[in-house]
Amino acid sequence: MNKIRAVVFDAYGTLFDVYSVTARAEQLFPGKGEALALLWRERQIDYTRIRSMAGADGKYYKPFWALTVDALRYAAERLRMTLDDATEAQLLKEYTCLSAFPENLGALKRLRRAGLPLGILSNGNAEMLDISVKSAGMHGLFDHVLSVDAVRQYKTAPEAYALGPKAFKLPAEEILFVSSNGWDACGATWFGYTTFWINRAGHPAERLDVAPSGTGHDMNDLLEFVRAKGVDV
Amino acid sequence: MNKIRAVVFDAYGTLFDVYSVTARAEQLFPGKGEALALLWRERQIDYTRIRSMAGADGKYYKPFWALTVDALRYAAERLRMTLDDATEAQLLKEYTCLSAFPENLGALKRLRRAGLPLGILSNGNAEMLDISVKSAGMHGLFDHVLSVDAVRQYKTAPEAYALGPKAFKLPAEEILFVSSNGWDACGATWFGYTTFWINRAGHPAERLDVAPSGTGHDMNDLLEFVRAKGVDV
Repeated sequence: MNKIRAVVFDAYGTLFDVYSVTARAEQLFPGKGEALALLWRERQIDYTRIRSMAGADGKYYKPFWALTVDALRYAAERLRMTLDDATEAQLLKEYTCLSAFPENLGALKRLRRAGLPLGILSNGNAEMLDISVKSAGMHGLFDHVLSVDAVRQYKTAPEAYALGPKAFKLPAEEILFVSSNGWDACGATWFGYTTFWINRAGHPAERLDVAPSGTGHDMNDLLEFVRAKGVDV
Repeated sequence: MNKIRAVVFDAYGTLFDVYSVTARAEQLFPGKGEALALLWRERQIDYTRIRSMAGADGKYYKPFWALTVDALRYAAERLRMTLDDATEAQLLKEYTCLSAFPENLGALKRLRRAGLPLGILSNGNAEMLDISVKSAGMHGLFDHVLSVDAVRQYKTAPEAYALGPKAFKLPAEEILFVSSNGWDACGATWFGYTTFWINRAGHPAERLDVAPSGTGHDMNDLLEFVRAKGVDV
């Protein structure tokens, strides 16, 4: 059994609840906002992948915030929704004031008290992450806030996942990588991390021929998993 | 102005009409089949990307047919639709008897008569492509049927697009790459091909900071584009 010596978290959807973005979209476009938020999110991730794959040297890399704007404009255009500057600004502004999932702050503090260094490893660029950490009340809880921006490759590129072991100076298997995205938990497992998938949406496992080391519904289940690994949390 | 010396096509959605897959899904699961087909297609593409990005050396590569099966099973499970062996086989079988879009055969023959060598460059593996070419009545029309399987990297990886220039022994800019997927046309443009996006669905342009050399609604618009490039077609 691997000893867990640090915990690294994905950011959006894992630490930060992005539902408020959908809620705001629905408020601005009643009956159509959810579709907008869904296509927006889909294209945001698609663009990270299309760009990363096309240039392993980071040639077509563009920071996550810029992709987020591109994806929103694409989604609105495709759904034939008029996005004036003020409306676009309102939607994007939601990203600057995300909340933590309710159990997260308590769980993070317990992990820290147990002596585990904590980190974030996100597709988001540093400016986005900095604002999100503060607005979710998580300032000072993380030893390392790592952005793939440093390597110009998005997850699931190994260069992105390699940021964790490098920052914590630990082998990947001694770091617990936590994500609410099934594909991200799978990618991190391939890389060599011990992994935990917070399956908040109750989705089936991704069929990628690899399974995260553990799975649960929220951060309290993560604490159980860490306890079972011998950490007194 | 580049001279066009060969034309290479994406396969599924570009040469072969995959709508029959959705129609069969809807027939098998009335009112829910379209959602199944949509999520199936989404995960099929996601899995090509997640696997390609995780291992630039093809370490996590799996042939497209196997991914297609994985994606179907995921989609059915997520939508809580029971997929017994017979139903699964019926849905998959649709891929073995796809039709050509109505104008495609005539257009391909005109391009050939104009002296242009033709090819396919697809994510699909050789067995899938072979069956599809025959069932769509396109046997004998292509000089090269190229599958990314040869390099174990899916599009938009440059290794995948490099198969065209290598097979035709031509620089990429002298090959016209044709796709109905906006992202594929963009990826091929980045690589260096002259490109044409057949925007059958009438979608907005992908916001990837790159534009295909030409865009149209169907294969007849492609013929116009080729004519404007000085080919008597």
